[in-house]
Amino acid sequence: MIHYNREDIDSLDKVSRLNLINSVTGFKPANLIGTISDQKQENLAIFSSLVHLGSKPPLLGLVTRPNSVPRHTYTNIIESKFYTINHINDNIIERAHMTSAKFNRDESEFEKCSLEKEYIDSFHVPYVKESECKIGMKFVEEIKIRSNDTILIVGEIINIMIKQDSVAEDGSLDFEKLNSVCISGLDTYYKAQKIVKYPYAKKKNIPTKWLR
Amino acid sequence: MIHYNREDIDSLDKVSRLNLINSVTGFKPANLIGTISDQKQENLAIFSSLVHLGSKPPLLGLVTRPNSVPRHTYTNIIESKFYTINHINDNIIERAHMTSAKFNRDESEFEKCSLEKEYIDSFHVPYVKESECKIGMKFVEEIKIRSNDTILIVGEIINIMIKQDSVAEDGSLDFEKLNSVCISGLDTYYKAQKIVKYPYAKKKNIPTKWLR
Repeated sequence: MIHYNREDIDSLDKVSRLNLINSVTGFKPANLIGTISDQKQENLAIFSSLVHLGSKPPLLGLVTRPNSVPRHTYTNIIESKFYTINHINDNIIERAHMTSAKFNRDESEFEKCSLEKEYIDSFHVPYVKESECKIGMKFVEEIKIRSNDTILIVGEIINIMIKQDSVAEDGSLDFEKLNSVCISGLDTYYKAQKIVKYPYAKKKNIPTKWLR
Repeated sequence: MIHYNREDIDSLDKVSRLNLINSVTGFKPANLIGTISDQKQENLAIFSSLVHLGSKPPLLGLVTRPNSVPRHTYTNIIESKFYTINHINDNIIERAHMTSAKFNRDESEFEKCSLEKEYIDSFHVPYVKESECKIGMKFVEEIKIRSNDTILIVGEIINIMIKQDSVAEDGSLDFEKLNSVCISGLDTYYKAQKIVKYPYAKKKNIPTKWLR
């Protein structure tokens, strides 16, 4: 085993530290967050920090970095109170990755990164047309994480649009059919293959061969 | 596209709603959280809600559900102030999954689910021996998410232990070499294959064929 203690971590060069700490949590979801400003300027940004908070009501959290530099996604969510979440699939990885380049606020990543915006029904924030799982979100609250001044944006799900035939009978999504990808660290994209699905865990179902 | 509005979601049967909302964020990391109580009772629990918060200092967040029922992991972290995070690899998926069964506080999931505990150096919380990426954590703060009474546990990384040869030159982890798996929803495990790694995104590197 390679062993890093805290001193080793803190004394790594910046790039190595970023790569190590950003990958150490394991696989991360790959989503594009669509937003719009009060001036109707559209924005699109890749995020790997989406996390499930609850199902009733359906709440999701999104971690965003401090506002020491302009954060168009954060600013737009606070302004408009709505945003979209769009799964990244293996057809749009490179375009999705490029949304993390530094664009000015009057530049739309939809246009610059060649992703098509899509307005659906009366929802006034753009979705990503190429995405096969899209979620319409309403802002609920922002929570400041004092330890490092990051912000947890809490939102509730208003709409979900999913490609036909990719919802299983039990309600769960089939990520192979959606071609959804995941991220490790800051820059590496993975495709995933289903290995196994287990029933709800119950003590009485523990294999007897495990008992010591 | 299948379209669910909020009314559709809220009127789904409980299992379908849980499966849909738990899978809609995309792939999730698969980790085992090791803890110990003041009475030295060890505990191990699977979590898919680990999220990166920052690299300097190295901070990670873990979402845990309300304390309406006993939550051994939460209680132990608050008592002892330390915990471990252990990547789930494809050799221990079933055993890791079974840690989510309801065990009493005096039962150790290490023993019941046939996973080997491992104490390393002076860290007084057990790691999972079978895991090939293990993190020693110190509790920093807990943040209540008022919207649904979940809790975000913020911790800082004290130690990282990783299998030899699975750290790339740039510091990032190679999840193929670690055999790390990811989760969708509550019960489905995926193995992932690397597709592509892109350099840091810069506007000047956008392919000219994209320009409209």
